[in-house]
Order: sequence, then structure tokens, then C-alpha cells
Amino acid sequence: MGKLIVQKYGGSSVANVKKLKNVANRIAFYVKRGDRLVIVVSAMGDTTDNLLSLSEQINSSPSNREMDMLISTGEQISSALLAMALHKKGIDAISFTGQQIGIITDTYHTQAKILKIETERIKKELKQKRVVIIAGFQGVSTALEITTLGRGGSDLSAVALAVATGADMCEIYTDVEGIYTADPRLIPEAKKIEYITFDEMLELAARGAQVMQTRAVEVAKKFNIPLHVRSSFSKKEGTIIMEKAPYIEESVVRGVTLAENEAKITVCNLSDKPGIAAKIFDKLASANINVDMIVQNVSHKKITDISFTVPKSSVSKTIRISKQIAQKVGAGEVLSDENIAKVSVVGVGMKSHSGVAAKCFAALAKNKINIDMISTSEISISCVVKKSSGKAALKVLHSVFALKK
Amino acid sequence: MGKLIVQKYGGSSVANVKKLKNVANRIAFYVKRGDRLVIVVSAMGDTTDNLLSLSEQINSSPSNREMDMLISTGEQISSALLAMALHKKGIDAISFTGQQIGIITDTYHTQAKILKIETERIKKELKQKRVVIIAGFQGVSTALEITTLGRGGSDLSAVALAVATGADMCEIYTDVEGIYTADPRLIPEAKKIEYITFDEMLELAARGAQVMQTRAVEVAKKFNIPLHVRSSFSKKEGTIIMEKAPYIEESVVRGVTLAENEAKITVCNLSDKPGIAAKIFDKLASANINVDMIVQNVSHKKITDISFTVPKSSVSKTIRISKQIAQKVGAGEVLSDENIAKVSVVGVGMKSHSGVAAKCFAALAKNKINIDMISTSEISISCVVKKSSGKAALKVLHSVFALKK
Repeated sequence: MGKLIVQKYGGSSVANVKKLKNVANRIAFYVKRGDRLVIVVSAMGDTTDNLLSLSEQINSSPSNREMDMLISTGEQISSALLAMALHKKGIDAISFTGQQIGIITDTYHTQAKILKIETERIKKELKQKRVVIIAGFQGVSTALEITTLGRGGSDLSAVALAVATGADMCEIYTDVEGIYTADPRLIPEAKKIEYITFDEMLELAARGAQVMQTRAVEVAKKFNIPLHVRSSFSKKEGTIIMEKAPYIEESVVRGVTLAENEAKITVCNLSDKPGIAAKIFDKLASANINVDMIVQNVSHKKITDISFTVPKSSVSKTIRISKQIAQKVGAGEVLSDENIAKVSVVGVGMKSHSGVAAKCFAALAKNKINIDMISTSEISISCVVKKSSGKAALKVLHSVFALKK
Repeated sequence: MGKLIVQKYGGSSVANVKKLKNVANRIAFYVKRGDRLVIVVSAMGDTTDNLLSLSEQINSSPSNREMDMLISTGEQISSALLAMALHKKGIDAISFTGQQIGIITDTYHTQAKILKIETERIKKELKQKRVVIIAGFQGVSTALEITTLGRGGSDLSAVALAVATGADMCEIYTDVEGIYTADPRLIPEAKKIEYITFDEMLELAARGAQVMQTRAVEVAKKFNIPLHVRSSFSKKEGTIIMEKAPYIEESVVRGVTLAENEAKITVCNLSDKPGIAAKIFDKLASANINVDMIVQNVSHKKITDISFTVPKSSVSKTIRISKQIAQKVGAGEVLSDENIAKVSVVGVGMKSHSGVAAKCFAALAKNKINIDMISTSEISISCVVKKSSGKAALKVLHSVFALKK
């Protein structure tokens, strides 16, 4: 019996009829090789955006339940069309919605979490030598409603299906050839990474790389399912994401990222007593605001400033909440700065190599790029700089760690 | 407790965002009046045609199962958007696919028949004072697959839902103001019919009127559910289709129709023995060819010609089958003529008024329109004429039975 492979094709891979036929050709290749295939598809190109635009014209704050009813159709369409394309090539295939196949989720519409996947029907269809096509990004809740898994949710569908079916491999097809040492649109000399660990990938994604959905990588890590991120338009191998990369000599830094969608908030003149900072971040967390970097200055006379970054979309909510607390605890002004960029270097090699941070700071200083905030983890270093210096900083860091081709 | 009304809005009524909002306004009017509403929607305007065109580009003979997966999305989209439009107006509403609500069908994909409708969820939602929106045209088969009910299937969804829920009324909204004595695009002086019987409506539909789906009318007749066909763009009353029209003085003819999508097939020189004709029509029926008029000439010397009409789309199949049989039974040539039109007059009043047929033939003759085939039923008379005379024949018949405004 052939290998069981889960393949996920993103929206750009099935953007139009021609590309969809190309995907069918690729699947045919694997079928002929004897593999058993479970295919997960995203909606075609801008289908989802078109549906969102329709709903926006009708109701600017639509109910999440109806939003799921609406946008889940995109993947149903591409799945059915892909089945037709395979039939045309004489390959037996059958498409399913998330609901039909039994991707069971919780009831959080538009952001549902997968609880369980039924595999009976999948196994039955695979036994009949059929390619099983499953609409990505969607499931059915415990309340029997259609749910979706949030942006990039098809990645999660694929990984979860790979886990549930005990697949030998999970391939994520996209319009780039893999994970790069930096965004190739910004750094043309960026190099494709052959192997990367789950932790590095999570760190890259958290720091701004947009290739894989974070939750999907987390699930792959949890169940130790290696992922192969590769292009649907090329036969080349892409990037393997796995527990431990099989390097002979570990490189220190795996990649660098730039994030321009965050803003810096500063609460001034806080008294430097235990529990004050916690109050702010508790409140922000319960308002679902995603705080990233937090920096507290050394305090003088028991008075301190605290700065943190949040997504730009949350700025006004963050300021409102921070001001309320500042007033309560007798702190000073709340300032915001949207004119920032965050550059990060990521790599598990840092754990055993000291001096990576120093090298970062020196390189930026040498290039006259001023660092506004710094935060480090075991496998990453992030610096906030002026927005106008962001791209230059990325270039400097990419070059100083010798990530070029 | 208010009246329970099933309203069906066709594709033209929800063709774009503006029209969809108009439908929401109309529904709001009924909600405020205190009615309880079950809404059935078709796909927006040309959504279905766009999906069919995509599938055509991929596979010219797609599997029926995948076709149903594909085209059922159109109604899911319009249902969700309508729910959002109602929410925007502060009206509680919830949308469902046919599968979710439990419209159980047989397994004949693209042409499924409704077997049963679950009403538990509908009743629960109505009790919560919610408008229940149901995607028309679709259901779920006994094999748990998504099915569709064939062209115009949303009418059938509406009527079946009215039956299942014991609705007080079933309204069919469309882009015309009701049923007319003739197609107003062909006969501008055609008049809206106030009341029409189920039988007359079925006869009109069978003879070429395209307002209501035939199966929907059959089901309404079977369960005696009056239908109100009306415009979603006007407050005017439309046409009521019911068991017995409440006329004081019965008019003889209710309407006239023109059908141009049929062809005439003639099998020549058949021996006039019992069972020969049956052989032909048995074979055609088992090939799913819809034979309409059948005319057999008076036979001379035990040899006869038999002519019948079939949809133009079935002509080549019909000729192939007819030739096989003709050869077997020693008959002559098989001829076909696509250059025909069928005009019909329909009305239950004919039953009690003799001379309607004679009046037809005389009027056509007076206008030098030659009749090629004639067939009559209790409540209709149809004549096949040359295609070029079709419209003129329609006008003559509309005028001779005084159907004008």
C-alpha cells in the first residue's frame, strides 16, 4: 500500500481554472506513483475577499455565524471543481465539506478550534482508491453549525487531517518555493531554507513571516508531523519543518523578519510597585489585545515608564484601556507611536552561541540605525526601530549573519 | 400567534446587494405585522450560471454529485447575506442550508426528489421569534450527500416547506407581477390573471409558461396549498394558484402559451399493428426522453406515419433510438423538423364549453396559419405550426379568446 500523503493547496495554487488543472496534474503524478492522497484546498484566489466585500456592503458588523455560512462556500466550490478536474483525467476523486467529513470544532465562529476529526469516511474512500478532497478552513461545531478556523485555517485543516489519518507526510503547497531566510520581495538575495525546526518556524511566524499559519505549526509540533512547504508551480523540494533539523553544522541564525503592522504604546510615570504592570496586561488580555514586546525602563525614584507593542488594529482600544488604568493607579500620560518597525533574527543556534545580540546591535549601530526597544527570547532577538529604517535594518541583519545565497 | 408564511425569493429578486436589501425591507414589513416567516432564497442572479461556466471549463461532463456540491453554494451565499441584511435592520434571523435544516431527498443528484422535511429546528427557531432563512433548491440525500432539486427547484423547496410546516400561505416572489394570459414580452396587451387553478397552471407550465416550476405546482395541488405568485418589487397582489378559482362567471380560456424549444420527429411507414407505437415510446421513456404531443395519421392499407414532439436537446438521441426500432420493425425513414413552434390555449372552462377547438382552428385558418399537428386534453389545445408563424399564432389566439386588458 502506497504512502498516505496530505497535500494542502492554497488559494494562489487554485486561483483560476488553469492553475486548478495544474494542481490536478500534480495530484495525478502522485496517484500514478501509488500514493494515497488526502487533498485540502483553499478557496480560489480572491473568492473569499469577494464574499467579504458583499457582506461588507450589506452589514459592516455581520454575525460570526452567518459569516461562516457565507465564506465556507469558497472552499466547497474549489473542492468540487478539483474533483471534476481529476475525473476529467480519469482519476477517481470525491470532494467533501468540513461538515460532511466530520471536522468537529468548538462553537467559536470565524475562529473555531478543531476538537476532533472523524476518519471513517476518509478511510472508506481511500480504500476505494479515491483521492479524497476536503474543503479547508472549515468544520462543523458541536452545535452542528458550520464553522471556520480563521485566516490561514486551511493549513490547520491539513495538519489536523495528517494527524488524524496518521499520514506519512503533510505537504503545504503555496506560490513560493519554501521558507526563506527573509522575505524575498524585500531581500532579493534571500535563500530558501532546506530544514527548519518547528520552534524556529513559530518564532519566524510570530515575528512577521507569513508563509504558514502559526496554529498549524503548533499542532504539527505537538504531534511531530513533519511539514513540507513547497511550490505548486515547481518540482523543486521546498522547506521541511521538523522537530530537529538534520544539520551537520548548525547555523546560528535561520532567518530574519520585518513586521510593520505594530504600534508602540508607552504608559509614563508608573510607580514601580509589584502588580501595577500586571494590572495593565490583565486588562488588555481580557480585551483580546495581543501584546507582543514589553519593555520597562530602569526606574528612577520608584517611577518608571512601560512600553509595549500591539497590532495597529488594536491601538485605539489599547489606549482607551491603558488610560483608564493609568488614571486609576495615578500614572501619567499614555503615548502611542505607529511609526515603528520590528526586525527580528531567529534561530535555535543562538541557544549555544553567545554574542548574537551584541552582533545585532553593533551591526545596526554601525549603519546608524537607532534601536528603540529590544526584546529577546531563547531563539530570537527583536528590535523596534523607526519605520523608515525597517527595511535597511532587515538588510543589515540578513547580511551580517551571512544568510545570502 | 401570527400567520405562518413561507416566502420564496427567486434569483432576480436577490440579484444584487440593492435588491437583497429590498427583500429585507419587505420581510421586515411582515415581521412587524406579526407574521412568522420561513424564507426560501435562490442564488443571486447569475451565480449559478457562473459556477456552471467554471465547471464547463474544467470538465464538460462533470459528475452529478460534484455538480451538486458546486452549485448548492449559490443559495448558501444568498441565504447568509439575507440574514446579515435582516440583522442590520434589527431583525433576528438565521440561515440554513438544506442539509442543516433536514430537507431529505432521494439520491438522484441534480434531479433529487424531496422525501421528507424535518421541522424540529424550524419550529424551535420560529419560537425564538427568528426569521428562518433556508437555502432553496437543495437538500441532503438519504446517503448524506448534498443534492439539488433541478432547475427552478427553489419553488419546490418553498412549497414542500409550506406543506411540512403547515403554513397558512406560500408566496412565490419573482420579477413579474404574476401569471399572465400570455408572455408579456411577446404580447404586450397580456393581462395579469387574478386566480388560476392548479390544473390550469400545470397545463400552462407544460405548454411553455416559465413562471413556476411544474413539480412545485404538483406538490401544491397534492396538498392543496394555495400559492401566491407576485413581484418582489411591488406591493400589488399577484396571481393566486388554487384548487378552484372563486370566479362568478368562468372564463373559457385562462391563457395562451408559445413553446419554441421542441422538435417534431416522424417515423414513416409503420405497420398499423397494436404494440408497434408502444415499442417506440417505451424505448424513448427508458432513455429519459420527454415525449409531448403524439399524432398518428389515419392509416391506409395498414401502413401509417407517427409523429411526436421532443425537446430539441433530445433530438439526436431520439433519432438514433427511433431508427433502431424502425429497422427492427421494418418501418421506413425517420424524419426530424426543428423548425416548429407549439401554441396552446389552456383553461378549465373548456370542459363545459364546446367549440373551443373549432374556434382555434378557424382563427388560425383565417390568418393563413397552417396547422401541422393538433393535440387536445380536457383543459388545453395545442397546435404545432411553422416556427416563423409561432408568434403570430399566439397573438391570434390571445385576441380571439378576448384575454386582453
